[in-house]
This record gives sequence, C-alpha cells and structure tokens, in this order.
Amino acid sequence: MEALDYHAEERRKAEFDLEEMKIVWAGSRQNYEISDRMARLVASDPVFRKDNRTMLSRKDLFKDTLRKAAHAWKRIIELRLSEEEAHMLRSYVDQPAFTDLHWGMFIPAIKGQGTEEQHEKWLPMAYKMQIIGCYAQTELGHGSNVQGLETTATFDPQTDEFVIHSPTLTSSKWWPGGLGKVSTHAVVYARLITGVQDHGVHGFIVQLRSLDDHSPLPGITVGDIGMKFGSGAYNSMDNGLLRFDHVRIPRNQMLMRVSQVTREGKFVQSDVPRQLVYGTMVYVRQTIVSDASCALARAVCIATRYSAVRRQFGSQNGGPETQVIDYKTQQSRLFPLLASAYAFRFVGEWLKWLYADVTQRLQANDFSTLPEAHACTAGLKSMTTSVTADAIEECRKLCGGHGYLSNSGLPELFAVYIPTCTYEGDNVVLLLQVARFLMKTVSQLGSGKKPVGTTAYMGRAEHLMQCRCEVERAEDWLKSSVILEAFEARAFRMSIACAKNLSKFSNPEDGFSELSPDLLEAAIAHCQLIVVSKYIEKLQQDIPGKGVKRQLEILCNVYALHLLHKHLGDFVTTSCITPKQGALANEQLRLLYSQVRPNAITLVDAFNYTDHYLGSVLGCYNGNVYQRLYEEAWKDPLNDTVVPDGYLEYVRPILKQHIRTARL
Amino acid sequence: MEALDYHAEERRKAEFDLEEMKIVWAGSRQNYEISDRMARLVASDPVFRKDNRTMLSRKDLFKDTLRKAAHAWKRIIELRLSEEEAHMLRSYVDQPAFTDLHWGMFIPAIKGQGTEEQHEKWLPMAYKMQIIGCYAQTELGHGSNVQGLETTATFDPQTDEFVIHSPTLTSSKWWPGGLGKVSTHAVVYARLITGVQDHGVHGFIVQLRSLDDHSPLPGITVGDIGMKFGSGAYNSMDNGLLRFDHVRIPRNQMLMRVSQVTREGKFVQSDVPRQLVYGTMVYVRQTIVSDASCALARAVCIATRYSAVRRQFGSQNGGPETQVIDYKTQQSRLFPLLASAYAFRFVGEWLKWLYADVTQRLQANDFSTLPEAHACTAGLKSMTTSVTADAIEECRKLCGGHGYLSNSGLPELFAVYIPTCTYEGDNVVLLLQVARFLMKTVSQLGSGKKPVGTTAYMGRAEHLMQCRCEVERAEDWLKSSVILEAFEARAFRMSIACAKNLSKFSNPEDGFSELSPDLLEAAIAHCQLIVVSKYIEKLQQDIPGKGVKRQLEILCNVYALHLLHKHLGDFVTTSCITPKQGALANEQLRLLYSQVRPNAITLVDAFNYTDHYLGSVLGCYNGNVYQRLYEEAWKDPLNDTVVPDGYLEYVRPILKQHIRTARL
Repeated sequence: MEALDYHAEERRKAEFDLEEMKIVWAGSRQNYEISDRMARLVASDPVFRKDNRTMLSRKDLFKDTLRKAAHAWKRIIELRLSEEEAHMLRSYVDQPAFTDLHWGMFIPAIKGQGTEEQHEKWLPMAYKMQIIGCYAQTELGHGSNVQGLETTATFDPQTDEFVIHSPTLTSSKWWPGGLGKVSTHAVVYARLITGVQDHGVHGFIVQLRSLDDHSPLPGITVGDIGMKFGSGAYNSMDNGLLRFDHVRIPRNQMLMRVSQVTREGKFVQSDVPRQLVYGTMVYVRQTIVSDASCALARAVCIATRYSAVRRQFGSQNGGPETQVIDYKTQQSRLFPLLASAYAFRFVGEWLKWLYADVTQRLQANDFSTLPEAHACTAGLKSMTTSVTADAIEECRKLCGGHGYLSNSGLPELFAVYIPTCTYEGDNVVLLLQVARFLMKTVSQLGSGKKPVGTTAYMGRAEHLMQCRCEVERAEDWLKSSVILEAFEARAFRMSIACAKNLSKFSNPEDGFSELSPDLLEAAIAHCQLIVVSKYIEKLQQDIPGKGVKRQLEILCNVYALHLLHKHLGDFVTTSCITPKQGALANEQLRLLYSQVRPNAITLVDAFNYTDHYLGSVLGCYNGNVYQRLYEEAWKDPLNDTVVPDGYLEYVRPILKQHIRTARL
Repeated sequence: MEALDYHAEERRKAEFDLEEMKIVWAGSRQNYEISDRMARLVASDPVFRKDNRTMLSRKDLFKDTLRKAAHAWKRIIELRLSEEEAHMLRSYVDQPAFTDLHWGMFIPAIKGQGTEEQHEKWLPMAYKMQIIGCYAQTELGHGSNVQGLETTATFDPQTDEFVIHSPTLTSSKWWPGGLGKVSTHAVVYARLITGVQDHGVHGFIVQLRSLDDHSPLPGITVGDIGMKFGSGAYNSMDNGLLRFDHVRIPRNQMLMRVSQVTREGKFVQSDVPRQLVYGTMVYVRQTIVSDASCALARAVCIATRYSAVRRQFGSQNGGPETQVIDYKTQQSRLFPLLASAYAFRFVGEWLKWLYADVTQRLQANDFSTLPEAHACTAGLKSMTTSVTADAIEECRKLCGGHGYLSNSGLPELFAVYIPTCTYEGDNVVLLLQVARFLMKTVSQLGSGKKPVGTTAYMGRAEHLMQCRCEVERAEDWLKSSVILEAFEARAFRMSIACAKNLSKFSNPEDGFSELSPDLLEAAIAHCQLIVVSKYIEKLQQDIPGKGVKRQLEILCNVYALHLLHKHLGDFVTTSCITPKQGALANEQLRLLYSQVRPNAITLVDAFNYTDHYLGSVLGCYNGNVYQRLYEEAWKDPLNDTVVPDGYLEYVRPILKQHIRTARL
C-alpha cells in the first residue's frame, strides 16, 4: 500500500531532471537542503498535525496554535537552529501565530527604528522571547493613510514621560496580529505631540500586559477583534484591538533612531536619512513576492495532481474516461498558473538581489535607485498577490465539486492568503504609487535624466513608439526578443497615453484622480513587463540538468503569451501587434500547452511539498484521492453519532406531526 | 440613537423615487409586498438570529439549523403561508438546510418524473413532511457526466424488486444535501439493469432511514462528507455520502413517467416526450439566475454603504477625509457590479417569462424553441453565477481590511455562494454546450433554417459581418442601438471565427476540443449580448416613478460599456469598433460613474434588504459601522476571559524560560 502511486505513469513521462529542477525552484542547493530538512521535521512531528484544524472551535484552534508555537520554539532551541532555519520551520508549521509578528515585525521595527542603546536593552529580551511583541499601527479608522492615525503620544516634561492615549473610537488600534491575547509589548504608532506641536506619526515601545500574570496594565483595554474569513485559516491569529487611557511610558521608549525628543521636550531630527524606511519596505515586500510564489505553487500543485486523477466524460469502447488535465479548457486555465508560479519565483529571487543592491547603495549614501526600487517592489507586491489570490480560487474551481471540501486544502489556503492583498499596502493604493512614478518618469524623459532599473526601457522612447512587431508565423512568438519588445512597447505606449490624457487637465491632481482606472492598467502593464523580462534574464543564466532549461523556456512563453491573450485589447489598441499576430500568439499558446502536458505532474513535484504542508486530500503525492476522501469524511464530528444531536427535538416532531389544515 | 442615520445626507441626494424602484427590483408590487412581509417576519423572530453563526462548531451549527428549520415549518403552518410565501420565508432564514432539497429537488423530481399513481402515494406525505427527501445523483467519481454514474438498480423478476447497489468506492453517492444526517428518503439515480441489459440512468425512490428511530435501514451506509469552505456558510447542510449493499425496493418505486419496467422485467419507453427534462432544467436554472442577482445585490449593498462611510486620505485644511466611494478607482470597480445586479435581475425576470413560454409550447407539443431556450438558460446560469462569485469577493476587497472580518458578512456570502458555479451544471461544461449550439446554428445559416430567440440576430449575418460602428463622440455610446449592434457584431464575428477555425480540422470533435478555450470566449460574448439586449428591452417598457427610468438607463449603459472596456480585445480584433471608439467608450463610462455616484446609496436601498438578512456590520442601514464593529468584537469567544486558555501551559513557560545557549 505504501508503494502505491497513481501518478507513477505521469511521472515517467517527464522530459527533464526533477532533482535539478527542485534546486532551481529552491534557488540553490543549500536552500533546497535546508527547506527539505525543515519540511520533513515538521511533517514527522505529531504535535504539528493540522488535518483536523478546520473543525476546531475558535478557542480550541487558538489553544492549538499556542501549543504549536511553544513546541516550535522548543525544537528551535533544542536543535540550535539558525534564524533562517527557524523561520522556515515556522513557515512549514503553516499556522499563523503571534510569533510571526514577534519575529517579522516587532523585532525588525526595533532594529530599524531604535537607537543602539535601545537595541541593547530590548533585543536580547525579544530574541529570548522573555517579552513577546507585536506591531500596533493600523486603527479602526485608518489603514492605508498612516499619516491619519489618531492615537497620541504627548510628552510630559514634568515626569519625562509620554502619555499614550486613544482620543476617539476610531483611534482604537485594530488588526495587529498577536495583540489580542498574547503580546506583552507592542511597537505603537502614535502622533508625537510636544507642547502644542504635532510632529506626525512615530513608534513607541509600550508594555501591554503584566509579565507576572498576563493581565493588561492599567489604562489598557485589549482584546481580540473576532472571527475572520473561513474556518481555520487566519483565525489561529489573535488580531487585536487596543485602547489607551492616558498610559504613561518613559521617554526612552520612543524609537529614536530617526527623530528624538530631548529631556527638555525638544523635537530633533537625527542625520540618519529618512529614506532608510524605504529600504525596510523593499525587504518586507520582497518576502511577500516570494511567499506569493509559494502559495500559488501550492494551489497549482493540488489542482494539477487532482486533474490527472479525475476523469470525466470521453470514455470510448468502455475504456477509462479522459483525465481532466487532457482537456484544453483545463489546460488553458491551469498551465498559465503553473507558469506564473515559476515566473513569480524568479522575480522574487531577483528582488532579493535588488534589496541587497539597495542596501549596499544606502550604506554608501547613494539614494539614486531607491525611488525606482521602491516603485518596482510596490508594484510587484500588488500584482503577484492579486494574481495569487485569484489563482487559488481558480485552482479550487479546477478541482470541481470536491475542491469545495475543506480537506481539498484550497478553501483554507484561499482564506489565509487573501489578506496579503491588503496588508503592507493595499494593492490598489500601491499600483497608484507605481503609476505616479511612471508618470514622473515619463515627464522627465525629455530632460536628459535617464530612467534607471526596471524603467530603463523608457529611455528608448522613440524606438518603442515606432517599432512594429514582426511576427508572421506562430513560432515567431517563441523568440524572447519579440516577446520582450511587445511587452515594452505596450507598457510604454500605455504610460504615454495616460500622460497625454493627464496633460489635458489644468489641475494635475484632478486629472490623476479622474484617470486613475486607466493609470492602474498602465501600472499593471509595467509590472507584467518586469516579470517577463526577469524571467527572460533568468533563462540567460547557466541552468544545468537534462531538459530543465527547455521546460523553463516553455513555461516562460506560456506566461508571456497567456498575458498577451488576456490583455489583447492593450496590445492591439496601442498598435503593438495586429489582430492577426494576436491570433498567432493564441495558436502558439495552444501548442505550448501540449508541450507542458507530459511534464505537468513533475513540474509540480519540483516544488518539493510534503503531504503535510500541502494539507490536501486532492493533492496528495500518491494520488489515492477517492480512498482518502472517503476515510476523511468519517472524521467529521457530525459522524460521531448515527442519529444527529437535535433529531429528537427538531426532526422527529416534524415527521410525526399530524397537520390538519396545511395550505401547502 | 434609533434615529441615527449616517447615510441620511447620501439618501437626500437621490434623484429618483425609491419606492417605485423597489417595485421595479421586486418585479411587481405584489412580489414586493410578500417579500417585504416575509423578510420582516424572519428579521423580528429571535429564533432566526444568525449573528453568532460563524462562531459555532459544526455540531452546534447543525443543531441550530435543525431548530430553525423546525421553527420555520411551525410558522409556515401557523400562518398558513402559500408555497411562494413559504419559499421566501425559508430564503430569508438564509441558512442552507435539508428543507432546501426536500422542497427544491425531492418533490420536483417526483412531480416531474413520477406517474400519477406515484404522485398520489408520495406527494401528500412529502408535502406534510411525514417523510423528508433528498436528491441522490452525484457520486464520488461522477458529477458532470451523469451518464457515467455507477450505482446499479437491477431488476429481480422473482421478487418484483429492484436491487440497489454500490459496486465500487467511486460509486458512493457523494454531495447530496440533506442526505448526511436528516433525509428519510431519497430519489436515487442508478443504472437500470434488466437481465443483462443496461438501460442507462433512472430515478428510484429509496427509503434510507427508519421512520421510528432514524437509524439507517439494513444495507445502507450513510454519513456526512465533512466540512466545506468557510465557517458557517454551507456547513449548516449535511451534504452526505451513501452506499448501498444490495438494498431491495419494490418495483413501483422506480420513477416511471418516462420509462417503465413491467412485472415481467420488460423495459418500456412511454410516449411522454423525453424533452420534458429540459423544461425542468430551464426552470431550475432560471431560479439560479434570479438568485444570482440577489446575492450580487447583497454584496454590492454592503460594499456601497461601507464605501460611503469609510474615509481615507484627501483631508484638506483639517476637514474630513474623502469618502472612498468618491474615488474613481472605487467607482470603476463597484458601479459596474451595481449595474450587473440590475442587469441580472432583468434577465432573470425575462427567463421566468421564457420558462412559461416553453411550458406552454411543450403542452402543445411544440419543441421547436427548446434547444435554444435550453442553451440560453445554460449560458446565463453559467455567466451570471461566475460573475457573481467573483463580484462578491471583489466587494469584499472594496471594503478593505474590515471586509476580511466575518461580521462584514462577505466571507460567508462568498463561501455559501460559490458552489452555485458547480452544481446544476459546471459552468465551463455549460458554456461548452452553448458553444456547441452556436456552432450548430452557424452551420445551418445557409440552409434556410432561421435562428430563433436569442440567436435570431445571427439571421442578419451579412449585415453583422459588414457593419461599422458609427461612434464619433463619447455621447454616441449612449444610444442603445449603437451598443446593441456592437455586441451583436462582436458575438457573431467571434462565432464565425470559431466556425472557420473548426472547419480546418478533419475531425470536428478534435477541432472542438482543441479550440475549446476560444469557443468559451465566443459563448461568453453571446451570453453578454443576451443580458444587454434584455436590459434594453426592459427599458422599452413603461416604467413609472420620477427618475426611475433615467437611473436604469444609466446603469444599462454602465453595464454595457464596462463589458466593452473589459473585452476591448474582442471588439477591436473583430473590427467591430476602432481603438479610438474604445477610448471614447471609456471616456463615456467615466462620465456615467459621476451620474451614478449621488444615487448609489439609494440604488442599493431599493433592494430592500433588512439588516438581519444582510448580516453585515459594514452594510447596516444606518451606517453606524465603527461603533458596531467595536461592540461585535467583544462577543468573540476568545474574549470570554482576559487571559486566554493555554497561557499557563504554553505562553508563560516561554516568557519565564532561561535560555543559556540560543544561537538566535
């Protein structure tokens, strides 16, 4: 039974070296090995079981999360794991917990915005988890507009303290993860007020709960904000609300790397460049893009494996029915998502490089590439997370009816993933930032200031406005130079069209607001170009392993051509391609699907996900789907008894009722 | 406090007669009054409370559902409600239950497929709920392909019985609602076998559980299939699994209206036309389209009201920030959905007429319009439910972070709605049926056979291939004749292009399969045309009430032009419009949004939803959103105690731990 593999035949079809592809996916052999080790560690530990998660009540789920977090911490210490390994272990536990915010936001905030003195005081405690922290920024009334936060931190020179206060209902802190029930401390963002002056929003370290008995400190009202989307999913997290009633903290708990308040209550800006903040944003958003590729790959892995097991229609002479993965309608929805997973993986890898590059430049006081890097990461965060959220749901639909069962894994994956589109910058707001940057870049084209980085193509303005796509036959669309030029020309011409329309408004802000839907489309075109071009760059690297490069080329073409088909209106109305060339691209796309088909199962095997992590009956490695569905069903609490609770009170009386006069 | 209305100012802006619009939405004054009465009846009854639903465990939720179903039945009898009123009451209870299948599938199946004798025996018991039934069709291995079902019903001439049996694991009945825990009976679909002959799939009435103690009868294995997407949502339903081990039923429990098995075991077809089945499908799918408009309206109502309360950015001189509904990016996403709700409402109304028309013709033995009516309802079911599912999630995103909270109502609405895309015909499979019908219609164009109904436009082939859109200025796009022609030409040319490409294949089935992604697009274009044209027809009726018609015209244009923009590639590559005309449509669309804006709140008030039914803190009528969010939060079970369960075991030990040698 252990040797059973319903996918064995599919796996034999693969035309490339799976082990090498696993390394390509992981980014390096070292990454692959760490990742593989951590995944197995988690999968083999019964404490990390998660197959019953969606059936737990909120309280039980939360307690289960505390238990897993404590166990993970125990293992991390026992095995003396590195920070990277610990991070990976937590991510394979795959259950949002307060620790995500402690390590991912609280500690980085102190590191990035605290002085060295503050580092020395707080970081050792935080690293040992002698304090547990969260990141209290958003409020009931303010999310995207951070500058509109209402919480106040008023300096009291008499006592050398800040008074933290929530002046209105809408100023209640709302959403911070780990806040509701666990965190002992928070980095709280509040308007700094000295005397009558409002210096805008700054960060403060505030203790929330007693380290003895965990009760909230005086003046602090704190609780959980309630259930969120789905069962399981993000409900393991205690997203919280927090109100301050004149809570006092010592002056040295303001994070003072960038600005200080002196003993006398004087507000002073340090000479540390404020742009450093953007460096952190580039970092955080880069990790989000990389996570997007993981989540997308997970959904695609489930849908691909199930599509090879599921058969429906098409039986001939009593033979087996057709595997649904063989239908072109299924392929045309699934394979572009498979290609997108790889494309996002590579652009995420490149963003890691970009962050290193930006960091190096910042240390050398070179801020020149920062705006471009900032716009580019904002756009890629927005684009990849929006696509991934939709794609998870599309993969669920590709699994037909059974995708609706919790144990398909897809409902919970969707529910837990979608907030990514909102946090760390709402996806629409971010695209508008990209659009603003593009319009600025366009406006400077004549000035001699050369566009840099991912906007460098705009420097070839004349060529991009005039070039004509030279595709004559379907296979011409396989040339990366042809694809790249089409995407560059489309993105550029859309930006230029927006700029032209903007110039008709006397007030540029009115114009920007009025034309914002068009600007979003131009921003998306630019972001898609980045992903396509980074994928093509990746292919120019040396990629070992039999057939690996070939498969990646096919997927790159699928990625580009499916976008071209989806946004055909953009390409044709800007005259980048002709309708005929669009039809040829579509024809080529169909041929590419046939080339992906025999490799599909092995291409998702390359993600190297354990059955534990996938958490999907439909996506299990050996494909024994129906047997497992049947066995899992009996585990539902409703099946504890043959006759359901409530039968005697509510069903039997109906069945036994004698109705004399029903109109029905 | 009761008189508080944060939307009062918005409501004063309305430029039309709300009461008349409510009647338009409901379809008639009578519908409006029944609907209003039933909605209030449910809303005012504490048993039907549902604000704590997402926090209940599966078992508690299920028991709560049984309680509500029993109470609804009690009220229906006490108040002597009509069938229509009873149906409406159940729909306002808004919690999927076994009764949906009993009334919606079990009884109609017996009515449609049973003989008069069978009606007399079974219907009175079913109407009084002395038996409770479900509809056991789909199996673990077969959904869309009904002809592939594996359950067998073998006639035993010795005992005059059928032996119902599940020969394989995949033949287990899987999904039927009401089956898992409640139903005493089922209409079971199984392959009829007499002697060695397989006569395909037929329906049989099978008792599943004892009417005395509810235990499953001998040979029957039955249970719930487990948790589904989301919390609350469809988990109130006991979707079930069912296996038969040679279960015997009397011969007269085969539904014998269309085919019979005689005492001798002879299989006989009756002279009742088999096409009658299609009439039922038209009926069921018509109700699904109408339900789609309700679900979409609900999501749009929530998002619109919240968008008027929520303010973010744009504060000038310390004034209030901008309502997010004033942003063009918000309008360009929200208002097309508002327009779609109205459009789907009207096409649903028309489908009701179509069903009546088809029924009348069937009674007169006129089957001529049936294929067209069948294709058209299949396509509209597919298109409206797919759009609605995506739109609910889009509305959730339009509510920003707070849309992710369960009490926004949108997560549960999404989770409960999405199976509609799969049941009663998978949406992709249905579109392929439409495409097949379109290709057949095109192939017969030369033959003199006139296309009828919604394909009548294809009769003007020559004109539609040659016509050129005459739009020169943005306002030209307001003419319904211009819009209609553009949609007709686009749909027709896409069908023709598919037919042309198909003709290149020597085997038409290979061609259909290979080109199926393109065929889907042609089918969608056809369905969109139907919705647009039925909306335009609606506007040609007499619509009373100040400003009502004007608003509906604006929404009709929004609906059509947003589709045109979204599918610009279709319109331009088929040369139906020029890129310039596409840009003018987009310009006109922006102007239309400004006209919708002052009426938006009142346009969603016209849906006449109670706060109970909406079930959304963000969408509540008076707009007191923040206060309610804050109050609701404290009701979460996690807030029962200040210190969470699990603190002592799992959090305190971490905080108090002394780590000697951490690598971190």
